[in-house]
Amino acid sequence: MRRLPLTLLAASLLLASGIASAANTTIPATAVKTAEQLRDKAMRDDTGYRIVTSLTTEVGPRLAGSEADQRGVDWAVAKFKALGFDKVYTEPVTYPKWVRRSEHGAIVSPFPQSMVLTALGYSPGTPRGGLTAQVVKFDSLDALKAADPATVKGRIVFVDYRMQRYRDGHDYGVGSPIRVQGPVVAQAKGAVGYLLRTAGTDPHSRTPNTGVTGFRDPAKAIPAAAISNPDADQLGRVLAYGKPVTVRLDLDCGIEGEYTGANVIGEVTGAKHPDQVVAIGGHLDSWDPGTGAIDDAAGVAIAMAAGKLIRDLPQRPDRTIRVIAFANEEMGLWGGRAYAGKHADEVAKFQLGTESDFGAGKVWRMSASVKPEARGAIEQIARVLAPLGVAYDAGRPGGGGSDLSQMHGKGMAALSLTQDGTKYFDWHHTAADTLDKIDPEELAQNVAVYAAFSYMAAQADGDFGSAPGAFAKDGAGE
Amino acid sequence: MRRLPLTLLAASLLLASGIASAANTTIPATAVKTAEQLRDKAMRDDTGYRIVTSLTTEVGPRLAGSEADQRGVDWAVAKFKALGFDKVYTEPVTYPKWVRRSEHGAIVSPFPQSMVLTALGYSPGTPRGGLTAQVVKFDSLDALKAADPATVKGRIVFVDYRMQRYRDGHDYGVGSPIRVQGPVVAQAKGAVGYLLRTAGTDPHSRTPNTGVTGFRDPAKAIPAAAISNPDADQLGRVLAYGKPVTVRLDLDCGIEGEYTGANVIGEVTGAKHPDQVVAIGGHLDSWDPGTGAIDDAAGVAIAMAAGKLIRDLPQRPDRTIRVIAFANEEMGLWGGRAYAGKHADEVAKFQLGTESDFGAGKVWRMSASVKPEARGAIEQIARVLAPLGVAYDAGRPGGGGSDLSQMHGKGMAALSLTQDGTKYFDWHHTAADTLDKIDPEELAQNVAVYAAFSYMAAQADGDFGSAPGAFAKDGAGE
Repeated sequence: MRRLPLTLLAASLLLASGIASAANTTIPATAVKTAEQLRDKAMRDDTGYRIVTSLTTEVGPRLAGSEADQRGVDWAVAKFKALGFDKVYTEPVTYPKWVRRSEHGAIVSPFPQSMVLTALGYSPGTPRGGLTAQVVKFDSLDALKAADPATVKGRIVFVDYRMQRYRDGHDYGVGSPIRVQGPVVAQAKGAVGYLLRTAGTDPHSRTPNTGVTGFRDPAKAIPAAAISNPDADQLGRVLAYGKPVTVRLDLDCGIEGEYTGANVIGEVTGAKHPDQVVAIGGHLDSWDPGTGAIDDAAGVAIAMAAGKLIRDLPQRPDRTIRVIAFANEEMGLWGGRAYAGKHADEVAKFQLGTESDFGAGKVWRMSASVKPEARGAIEQIARVLAPLGVAYDAGRPGGGGSDLSQMHGKGMAALSLTQDGTKYFDWHHTAADTLDKIDPEELAQNVAVYAAFSYMAAQADGDFGSAPGAFAKDGAGE
Repeated sequence: MRRLPLTLLAASLLLASGIASAANTTIPATAVKTAEQLRDKAMRDDTGYRIVTSLTTEVGPRLAGSEADQRGVDWAVAKFKALGFDKVYTEPVTYPKWVRRSEHGAIVSPFPQSMVLTALGYSPGTPRGGLTAQVVKFDSLDALKAADPATVKGRIVFVDYRMQRYRDGHDYGVGSPIRVQGPVVAQAKGAVGYLLRTAGTDPHSRTPNTGVTGFRDPAKAIPAAAISNPDADQLGRVLAYGKPVTVRLDLDCGIEGEYTGANVIGEVTGAKHPDQVVAIGGHLDSWDPGTGAIDDAAGVAIAMAAGKLIRDLPQRPDRTIRVIAFANEEMGLWGGRAYAGKHADEVAKFQLGTESDFGAGKVWRMSASVKPEARGAIEQIARVLAPLGVAYDAGRPGGGGSDLSQMHGKGMAALSLTQDGTKYFDWHHTAADTLDKIDPEELAQNVAVYAAFSYMAAQADGDFGSAPGAFAKDGAGE
């Protein structure tokens, strides 16, 4: 009596085990070992640093739509080829072309003196001779939102929030909306111009952080700029005298039609499943005051170097490693949105993906948005990354980074590989975003992380759950 | 028999003692005690910080000869009066007026991109549309001096020396001649333009240090500018590709006739010897990119605040405390030279003097150029300053500071009160020279030093040896 049931029990256990084995994604031991070797090799390798040096030196600043945009695309195509990628191609990305020609600012009264400012993306220019108006200050975006329009109408709004340094950069969650939404709110209330204390964390630098605004309709846009922290201190001191303070903005910038650039893609073709891809990348464009070293030549270099290290293995990986250098991330994820728009139907073919776009500091945290049955594989990846100082946070979703967040929004399984951003906002979008801000050893650690995880994902038995709309519960696509 | 000789001996000893007493300058115990009280009060007092805030906020940048120059003079006159100085007056200073309107630079080939630069004082402008020429690099001023003119002719010279941080700032002894003499040497060899790696010590800042050149004859001057450390790194990297590197300078600047500004002087009148003066000061002008906080609103504030604290004592000091806010130090000690030219004949009336012009860091060393018989008084001063962290170096001469070095050259007894300049050249002559660089407590320590020494010098029994040409052996006047 017991035998049959026992046999049945064993059979059902075997069956369950078999089902589980089929459903749970795992990474073969040989692949884990190769990933460890890749990781260790990457830590001794300078391919990433040589790439970031090449891009920032030979192309320099790469404002989307500028003359340097095409040179950046040409550079990326040539670099992918020189690194030996199997397939190199571009996909067009069309967006409004915003240009910056000159920018000046000054306190006109009561204490005349120049101010250092930088126009924000999509800001229109001022009339020739400048825009002069009285300043009204708010301490927060909420205070501006709550303001009576009568106090704002005809004025230049100044939002004075001081961003602080954090490893995870979370204060950008306050600073960024002040730059993006603030100008829109101010315009709607009748302001004639907009200034913010720079969304930057260096209290002593005179190089303010530029960045995009939320202006969508040029008919509803006002001149908008960021002033440096010392300039904001000064404007605050001048306002504290209690007299009316008049400021002049003289910006020559604005939208000039459309431009078609390109996402540049290099692939290491998978041996078994060439149509299944691990997608990594960075963005090729940068803001114009600096050379876009940390934002985001570093991300491009990290992903390219990781792909190159996998390409140099004796055998091609099972799945394709796709490295994407995105167009025009800075002015609204244009490259990422175009990419996701074009490839949404193929989302189930995207094994796993993430983009590097938070500088060149060491990766200290990994999180993932994957199906439950792939958590074990993520833990396998985490164990390989742990010696690099990367902690796995199983309680957080993965976001996929900036442009690839758009594919994640379509249902791509995604990691977040969080870099140390303590000083990121000291340099982000400023003239100080130059090569000297990158530590070659920290960059190599990033390459090691990307090479190891990408290879393991490419070799996995099973998938990570990519499917149309799969990760809406993680906030993907928001 | 013995009596007479003993009496004679006693008499001669008394006489010797009397002569020594007359010859050795000493500071009465009551004055020492008052100086200690002044010192301690100054450490708790914010007068200096309020002055430096007022000047940098209400006047802002104060380029000599600019519209702000007169506002600076007006500010100083009003501030001296508001602080209760007994006598406030100006003395005219005439100098060439140099103006800066705009400045741009770029690498034209092989890798086109903008460069951040700042035109140097007395640089002429470039032709409209800019000056484009190939770059030739030298690692030092000596290498440029040794160069065959054929390698320089028709080129833009680039001298690439990287200044390092030191507490005493001694690397400016290398960097400053590269900026001052370098353009003159390059012009003489046929160069058409001149660039230096900024004479600044922040390796990461894009705000280059401006400063004066040694151009004296406008007919023998070429466009000259400093590029920031990251820009110099970049230019060096581009040159390292081994291809010809072409750069464009587009400077709109130059000399526009003469200007007459003013030294502004405030005095706390001596009760016993009003014609004998302790001379302290700073310079009122600044370079234009920043607000001249550390250079030299701090020096003006330190001297003004020291004078104010002495003025607030129950009784006026024995000698006059003369606080001088000098005109146009930056473009060649014009205020200091005019002052020394006018007052050379009165040099013996200058009890002791020194100027503060090395920022707002704590004073850590004192040295003096005084007659041997005043060394004891200097030691008395040193004992009062010792609790502030000031070490007396008896083996070094005193220089009198920047403008007052000129009176020292005429024979004025002088101190050097050396400030901690570790970060001074991070900010000196840059856009980053703003109020946030000043620590109020360190500024207060400076005021304490100046108040205590000035008061003790004013109360001394005896002088410090000022006389025409007295300190030529210390290098004064060189």
